[in-house]
Amino acid sequence: MMLRTGFVRASGYAHKVRRVLFAVTRKKVDPKEVVRAAGELNQRIFEKLGELGVDKDDVIRVTVPFTIEEGTIRWDYEKLKIEVYRKSEERNLALAMEEVEERERELDERIKELEELALHLKKTSEEILEKLEELKQEHTSLKLRAEG
Amino acid sequence: MMLRTGFVRASGYAHKVRRVLFAVTRKKVDPKEVVRAAGELNQRIFEKLGELGVDKDDVIRVTVPFTIEEGTIRWDYEKLKIEVYRKSEERNLALAMEEVEERERELDERIKELEELALHLKKTSEEILEKLEELKQEHTSLKLRAEG
Amino acid sequence: MMLRTGFVRASGYAHKVRRVLFAVTRKKVDPKEVVRAAGELNQRIFEKLGELGVDKDDVIRVTVPFTIEEGTIRWDYEKLKIEVYRKSEERNLALAMEEVEERERELDERIKELEELALHLKKTSEEILEKLEELKQEHTSLKLRAEG
Amino acid sequence: MMLRTGFVRASGYAHKVRRVLFAVTRKKVDPKEVVRAAGELNQRIFEKLGELGVDKDDVIRVTVPFTIEEGTIRWDYEKLKIEVYRKSEERNLALAMEEVEERERELDERIKELEELALHLKKTSEEILEKLEELKQEHTSLKLRAEG
Repeated sequence: MMLRTGFVRASGYAHKVRRVLFAVTRKKVDPKEVVRAAGELNQRIFEKLGELGVDKDDVIRVTVPFTIEEGTIRWDYEKLKIEVYRKSEERNLALAMEEVEERERELDERIKELEELALHLKKTSEEILEKLEELKQEHTSLKLRAEG
Repeated sequence: MMLRTGFVRASGYAHKVRRVLFAVTRKKVDPKEVVRAAGELNQRIFEKLGELGVDKDDVIRVTVPFTIEEGTIRWDYEKLKIEVYRKSEERNLALAMEEVEERERELDERIKELEELALHLKKTSEEILEKLEELKQEHTSLKLRAEG
Repeated sequence: MMLRTGFVRASGYAHKVRRVLFAVTRKKVDPKEVVRAAGELNQRIFEKLGELGVDKDDVIRVTVPFTIEEGTIRWDYEKLKIEVYRKSEERNLALAMEEVEERERELDERIKELEELALHLKKTSEEILEKLEELKQEHTSLKLRAEG
Repeated sequence: MMLRTGFVRASGYAHKVRRVLFAVTRKKVDPKEVVRAAGELNQRIFEKLGELGVDKDDVIRVTVPFTIEEGTIRWDYEKLKIEVYRKSEERNLALAMEEVEERERELDERIKELEELALHLKKTSEEILEKLEELKQEHTSLKLRAEG
């Protein structure tokens, strides 16, 4: 299989690697392993970017083949490829990617708020079930959880 | 401590014992133990009712002291008292308790429907959280569950 | 049609009339009309109980025929019947009805708590939809409410 | 005020205009007016893009000043500016914007699924309140909706 980040600002490659890896391995690999493997690859990319003198405002594109063996992701580092598009040369690309990053930050904020509401919702629905169980215990003849 | 069922139709003593035991031991005893202890006492009451020749339409009142020792309910069977009010002698009482039982059956039905909706609700709120987690994995930089 | 309260403490006849009227007219009459008609009948019963010198601890049983005409409940007051069971004569019945009233008060408390949670739940689910709509407006190409 | 779409594929300008307009006028203008004003501007942009011979794969950037008068958005068409970056000249920019569009389509799909779950959730919470109201009517003395 192949991981392709597509165009991404150097400043944001790590999250992009992880997102794309989640998408491409969806339902095939445990999320913890995706997080681990992304972290491992990102460390390698980080070193390479240093060697290449890439700036955070430059745009890069990473491709790397990998295999999944018994639930573990193995990167073929030999074939890791990093393309670099310097801001000084591809100014519009760099600016466009900056805009994309800004919109992603806003999306993150929205999703975070949604998640807080959804967690609150789950808590409330559990409280309702708890109250119903107590009501069943003291006011009904219905089968209780404790009767399994 | 003392368990007092109050007036109850003989046909419904077992559920009444359990309900009252839940109410009187609330938050002090594990629900499983309440269910077990109620079952144990109900067996004893069942035998006594047989000995006394009590009919399901008669009304009874049970009182029995108990202690809670290390989370376990111990009945003081020596002091178990069962008062019997024969339908032939206390007709209005018997009829009133029949009405109470009928209304409790209707309440049971309502509570059961509510519980089904509440379980459905919990499932939906979990699905929403699941979808949000997938969305976070593939579209955001937010902290994931797998990062614990 | 016939409204039959069954046995009820004189102190609690008004709520019992309303509950039974709701049950017997279910889905046939607007709730506001049920509340109104119960209030009207209860006023009449109140006067009769005064005339009869009924005490709040006595038990009564009310029956009264009624018709539903164009959504309005009309009581046949000519046939209103109130049976009275004095506590001094039917002591066990009076005590049993007292117990029933006490348990109903506890049930009320539980249902009230459940309702507060359910209202909170509805509010949270509406907030989630609101957040999703904002997210759709600013981050997606999906059809919006405003496009209705 | 100023609407700036930032870089966007010509194929997707209309949705981008709307999204940005929602973001920039947030809480200041009724959503229906945002939809209307975006539609109006998009029609004008559409005509201009035809005149300019812009292809759907080209990237554009639109800026236009506007005012809000009594809740209505008025575009200053005199100052409408459309910058065009032909794919033939800015290939990487065009490819990057294609990737962005693809990811947005996936996000749309996710948000749509979330919304369906949230609507389902709202329906369930309303059903729970409805069941509770019926239970209150027939089994409690609690204040009902019909009592206002």
